[in-house]
Amino acid sequence: MDGASPVARKEADVAVTVSAQAAAHVQETDIPYSIACSVPSSPSGLHLGACASIVRMATEVSLDTHHHGATAEAPQLLSQTGHPTLTISTEEPWRDRRFDHLKTFSSGSRVERQVSTLHPPAEIEVADSKISEEEEEETGDGDGDGDSENEVPSVDRYFSALQGRELETLRATEVSTLPDGETWPFLLRFPVSAFGMCLGVSSQAMLWKSLQSEPSMAFLHVSPAVNQALWWVSVALTAFVSSVYLLKAVFYFEVVRREFCNPIRVNFFFAPWVACLFLVNGLPRPVAAIHDSHVVWYVLMTPILLLDLKIYGQWMSGGGRRLSKVANPTSHLAIVGALLGALVGLHEAPLFFFAVGLAHYVVLFVTLYQWLGTNDVRLPKELHPVFFLFVAVPSVASMAWARLCGEFGFGAKIPYFISLFLFVSLVVRINLFFRGIRFSLAWWAYTFPMTSVAIATTMYASSVNSLVSRVLAIGLAGIASVTVTGVLVTTMYHAFVRKDLFPNDVSIAIMQRLNKPKHAVAQLARCIL
Amino acid sequence: MDGASPVARKEADVAVTVSAQAAAHVQETDIPYSIACSVPSSPSGLHLGACASIVRMATEVSLDTHHHGATAEAPQLLSQTGHPTLTISTEEPWRDRRFDHLKTFSSGSRVERQVSTLHPPAEIEVADSKISEEEEEETGDGDGDGDSENEVPSVDRYFSALQGRELETLRATEVSTLPDGETWPFLLRFPVSAFGMCLGVSSQAMLWKSLQSEPSMAFLHVSPAVNQALWWVSVALTAFVSSVYLLKAVFYFEVVRREFCNPIRVNFFFAPWVACLFLVNGLPRPVAAIHDSHVVWYVLMTPILLLDLKIYGQWMSGGGRRLSKVANPTSHLAIVGALLGALVGLHEAPLFFFAVGLAHYVVLFVTLYQWLGTNDVRLPKELHPVFFLFVAVPSVASMAWARLCGEFGFGAKIPYFISLFLFVSLVVRINLFFRGIRFSLAWWAYTFPMTSVAIATTMYASSVNSLVSRVLAIGLAGIASVTVTGVLVTTMYHAFVRKDLFPNDVSIAIMQRLNKPKHAVAQLARCIL
Amino acid sequence: MDGASPVARKEADVAVTVSAQAAAHVQETDIPYSIACSVPSSPSGLHLGACASIVRMATEVSLDTHHHGATAEAPQLLSQTGHPTLTISTEEPWRDRRFDHLKTFSSGSRVERQVSTLHPPAEIEVADSKISEEEEEETGDGDGDGDSENEVPSVDRYFSALQGRELETLRATEVSTLPDGETWPFLLRFPVSAFGMCLGVSSQAMLWKSLQSEPSMAFLHVSPAVNQALWWVSVALTAFVSSVYLLKAVFYFEVVRREFCNPIRVNFFFAPWVACLFLVNGLPRPVAAIHDSHVVWYVLMTPILLLDLKIYGQWMSGGGRRLSKVANPTSHLAIVGALLGALVGLHEAPLFFFAVGLAHYVVLFVTLYQWLGTNDVRLPKELHPVFFLFVAVPSVASMAWARLCGEFGFGAKIPYFISLFLFVSLVVRINLFFRGIRFSLAWWAYTFPMTSVAIATTMYASSVNSLVSRVLAIGLAGIASVTVTGVLVTTMYHAFVRKDLFPNDVSIAIMQRLNKPKHAVAQLARCIL
Repeated sequence: MDGASPVARKEADVAVTVSAQAAAHVQETDIPYSIACSVPSSPSGLHLGACASIVRMATEVSLDTHHHGATAEAPQLLSQTGHPTLTISTEEPWRDRRFDHLKTFSSGSRVERQVSTLHPPAEIEVADSKISEEEEEETGDGDGDGDSENEVPSVDRYFSALQGRELETLRATEVSTLPDGETWPFLLRFPVSAFGMCLGVSSQAMLWKSLQSEPSMAFLHVSPAVNQALWWVSVALTAFVSSVYLLKAVFYFEVVRREFCNPIRVNFFFAPWVACLFLVNGLPRPVAAIHDSHVVWYVLMTPILLLDLKIYGQWMSGGGRRLSKVANPTSHLAIVGALLGALVGLHEAPLFFFAVGLAHYVVLFVTLYQWLGTNDVRLPKELHPVFFLFVAVPSVASMAWARLCGEFGFGAKIPYFISLFLFVSLVVRINLFFRGIRFSLAWWAYTFPMTSVAIATTMYASSVNSLVSRVLAIGLAGIASVTVTGVLVTTMYHAFVRKDLFPNDVSIAIMQRLNKPKHAVAQLARCIL
Repeated sequence: MDGASPVARKEADVAVTVSAQAAAHVQETDIPYSIACSVPSSPSGLHLGACASIVRMATEVSLDTHHHGATAEAPQLLSQTGHPTLTISTEEPWRDRRFDHLKTFSSGSRVERQVSTLHPPAEIEVADSKISEEEEEETGDGDGDGDSENEVPSVDRYFSALQGRELETLRATEVSTLPDGETWPFLLRFPVSAFGMCLGVSSQAMLWKSLQSEPSMAFLHVSPAVNQALWWVSVALTAFVSSVYLLKAVFYFEVVRREFCNPIRVNFFFAPWVACLFLVNGLPRPVAAIHDSHVVWYVLMTPILLLDLKIYGQWMSGGGRRLSKVANPTSHLAIVGALLGALVGLHEAPLFFFAVGLAHYVVLFVTLYQWLGTNDVRLPKELHPVFFLFVAVPSVASMAWARLCGEFGFGAKIPYFISLFLFVSLVVRINLFFRGIRFSLAWWAYTFPMTSVAIATTMYASSVNSLVSRVLAIGLAGIASVTVTGVLVTTMYHAFVRKDLFPNDVSIAIMQRLNKPKHAVAQLARCIL
Repeated sequence: MDGASPVARKEADVAVTVSAQAAAHVQETDIPYSIACSVPSSPSGLHLGACASIVRMATEVSLDTHHHGATAEAPQLLSQTGHPTLTISTEEPWRDRRFDHLKTFSSGSRVERQVSTLHPPAEIEVADSKISEEEEEETGDGDGDGDSENEVPSVDRYFSALQGRELETLRATEVSTLPDGETWPFLLRFPVSAFGMCLGVSSQAMLWKSLQSEPSMAFLHVSPAVNQALWWVSVALTAFVSSVYLLKAVFYFEVVRREFCNPIRVNFFFAPWVACLFLVNGLPRPVAAIHDSHVVWYVLMTPILLLDLKIYGQWMSGGGRRLSKVANPTSHLAIVGALLGALVGLHEAPLFFFAVGLAHYVVLFVTLYQWLGTNDVRLPKELHPVFFLFVAVPSVASMAWARLCGEFGFGAKIPYFISLFLFVSLVVRINLFFRGIRFSLAWWAYTFPMTSVAIATTMYASSVNSLVSRVLAIGLAGIASVTVTGVLVTTMYHAFVRKDLFPNDVSIAIMQRLNKPKHAVAQLARCIL
């Protein structure tokens, strides 16, 4: 047995058994049906321990395939055996190799992996083979940041291959590099935007701490237990999501890289740290010792600083990921990280993060208002929950500034009022929001701004203690909690009833490039002349 | 007699008698000359009272037509009867129906109106008939805000059909939907930018209050009477303009809607409220009780808040009216409203408006400096008085911040100095301003920024009481007063001597769409292939 | 002898003797070799005194030509005579007239000069003759600021004719209006960016004054002598560079105008005043009386105010030099001038300059982040030292605000931290900076930001006196000093060893316009149809 993970191997096996026919009708009609001969065996103990929780998920996946596979005899067989999650294939020659180019530890050597990356599977190559030589040279043109390997599509490629506010749908003209008629391995379908769940729940923990501890909300007599319960749930959720994503990073590093290069997804890489910062701020008193710990702060802020240097630097240096190209509402996540860092912390460093966040927020705010980052053609008629991220940054900024100054003065009230206006501005358009938009995990990220504005309002109410401010605080807290509950229920519904919480993540399956339109033009020109 | 207004009816009649021949040569050569059989009768007493001042204006209009009409026998007959303003037509079948599609209460039912809107008069349909089916589907594409009825042209349409800094001239390629050889009914020609007059005069009232009450200006011994006189004049003017525009809104709601969709004009919808805020601030002491009234504030700020939510929301939501498309110097009016709201007022709400105004001002300022809102082709070589609106926002912001803080500190001085620099920057280019630019009512809006900067300077001089600051205050107040006087004289000249103060307002007469260039391209392509 | 300068004349002579053959192979092959009959004589005493230092430079130039000229007999003869710098030509008919159209005082009358400007030398006219009539009318279209003479190329022309981050290279499709096979007269090759040297050295003087006087740096016991030595060197350097450039302005005013219209170079016109402001701030105590002199401040700030009015006004008024067209990192120099003015000074005026600088900095910062000023096609893959100018403005702003407030508070710390972040963001990409970028005098301008951030850090360390801040201050001061030393050495190397410190300045040699691409399109269209 080689270094490949038993879990990943298993999933690949499950997938291949189901998708044989599906894959067949994609491209090659001559390949005979391959039946997977899964040899049930026990994985190594070490892996079993680490992946305990994955196993259950994976079981769902294999069950899930029942609903999708056209000819699902093999999986039925699998589930009849009683322990489908432990099936591990040996090195059969007919093993499913279609996901190998994304695996960190594939069966072959690293060299083989690189070769397989350069030579994608046959069905892809057919579509790819027409790309002329000069296009090869263009690869990575738009980067300007030195990390332009051939393997990762450029930002332009993402925009041209995908559509939707979250770039979540493949365009009609595109061919997926992964089999699109079946369900992929679970880890491949687990997007980084799943950290949105952590954001939503951990910010709720902080909100309920505010409702309990802010003087203006004392009349509510909120029990500390709510905060504690939410906090521990958040911790558990964050730990779980982090573990799964860590596994993805280990076994499918290539996919993580592709998510990092995706102009929408890259912003979600801030989410884990933002969630942790919410946790630190929402800390119940019994565990409050952590709050004053310098170590926690340094541990959390180092990755945020590095990400800031990376992301903001790319905005500035003007390559393919310059701001006017990649700006979109999720970019706010990159700012929230810096500003929340200002909320926790020590003497001068919080101000550093506040200053950096502020400077880039101004740039982002102006750019988004100007809609530079988005081509006209991609503008759908309806709004999108993603817009609520507009509210997040000013509300977090107001909290951060109040913390830095020690009082909720003008400097805190101005961003607070801006966030309030933006919130109202979105709420009056609420009927435009949920028109024909597919639920996705990312929605969680779009709900935490409501929680942020509610927390800021409780702080504002403590400073300006009037009836209006208190009603506002309670109202916004109510909206935020109801929204999070609603999204939670929807998530449960999609996870357990419809079982489509984790659809195939097409954004990792786009090819490096496609036949460009200029070919058509050239052909037309030739035809004319 | 049906529900149609006698005034509106009368105007239409006057128009039709004069324009018979003019209309004839526009499109249909087969229609015999129609002579209006006006039946003199008394309008209902209620309308007569409300429209007292309109009557005089309308008389001017009918006199005005003498100069324009080619064959003006009928109007001469009309004026010989001695009471032309009271002529009301009965329901003749040959009644002029060319303005019906703009009327709120046309002779037919509402359904008929809608039908007539969908089927514009014959001469329009001829030009319109070539629009292919697929273009119909494109209607309202660029909106993204849900209010895209078929009837109102899109923002792109306004830009493509009109030209000039104020979009006040029809392009050569366009066909007007209204008869362009004659003078239209008065209400159709009364633009929302007429509120600019209120801005100019009411800001002068505030300036003279400052000159009288600011400690730094005490040595001038300005009489309170100046402020009082200007204030009452402003009140009267604002009331008059508001009444007339209200009548327009009642009788030609469609036209008001078209003005609201015009990317330039929409900003003037802030003007009435801004003028009222100037009035509240310029209040002479005898009536100063109003100043402290909460009711006045709420009455004035509610429409501004609603407009802000509408306009700023459209900037943000990224449809056809997104900022990078509609930004132009008149957009400053949308900010001034919010900031002036911060000048009057109570405890926290002024700061709310200040924050909202500030955030959007930064966006607007950057966007205007980048000249994103304007295509290159539309850039005339000369500057335009509209640029003085650049000065308005920072000077109002400095006043507002000084009021919020209780002193003219750094926060007030910085915007003040910015406005001063912008003012000087424009004044040194003054020779470029009045080169071949047609006077229009909108000029009034371009003069109030000078008054604003003068008021801010008197406040600054009270804070920094030096010779330089006092000379500056007197100098700027002088420039502002002279300019307003000059514009007043010009207005009088155009109103009473040249009688062209209210020319035909072509911007309401553009068609929904025109044969698009792509047709030409397609034709060329077909011709080539 | 006419009014022309002996120095300029001499240089032209030296040039012509060398470049006879070079010029011949450019265009005209029929012209026989012309040998310069230089008549040694003494220039007027006045000029001799003023140009003392130029003489040595000019000698280098003539020596320099040895390495470049193909047939260098004549210069050798010249240098053998022992006093080649004093050779002055009389009015020979075969005098080199190729630089005459750039001279302020050419041999003919002013009218002749203008004629010669309109009719450039033969080899230019050949390339120019194909420009059709309608293109003549387009000249100066994009200006909008009233100073669009025919003679100076438009901003678009600079962008289309030149390439590189500093627009320092002629594109392959361009023909130079000056002989490109030889070395031009020294003054023609002395660019305004030479003032960058003054910036680098004078900011060092200020840094060492800070290291000596700031309380936080007292433990270093820096000797005042370092500051004094650097200051006097800076004064001498600034005086020298200013004198030479003044000579250029006198004798080749047309060239200075062309540099002023160059979108990159125009920003360097702030450099002399910025350098002087550094000098005033870096003033050693023995001569500190100057610091408090109002006269010095007014003398320095008047040109900056005028330049600000000119440059910022052009950004705003939206002509061919509007911000979204000309924005580039060197535009920061235009802001630094205003902010440094805030550092020196009196009561209110510094705040005026701070406000003006701040407002335009926000606009510039956003615009540069959005990369509006640069077309995609012109984006090289590697970064450039010019990016360090990003660091300059916020660090100077933090110093200015600290001086205005009297303490290094939040308002100073926020810009300071922004500059620190930007600095780190650039340093981590340092390996991208020096990849294939040619050294030029402009590099000096790119090094002074490091010095600025070091000075700001010493001030910060005095406010927040911790180990970290002191280490940071010393580290940054070290980096700045080492960098300046490195650039100094490189400059010396290029000046004395490679003798290419002042290469031909192609940006002054571009033609007004070239055959536009539309001609090609039209030709293609004709060919198709």
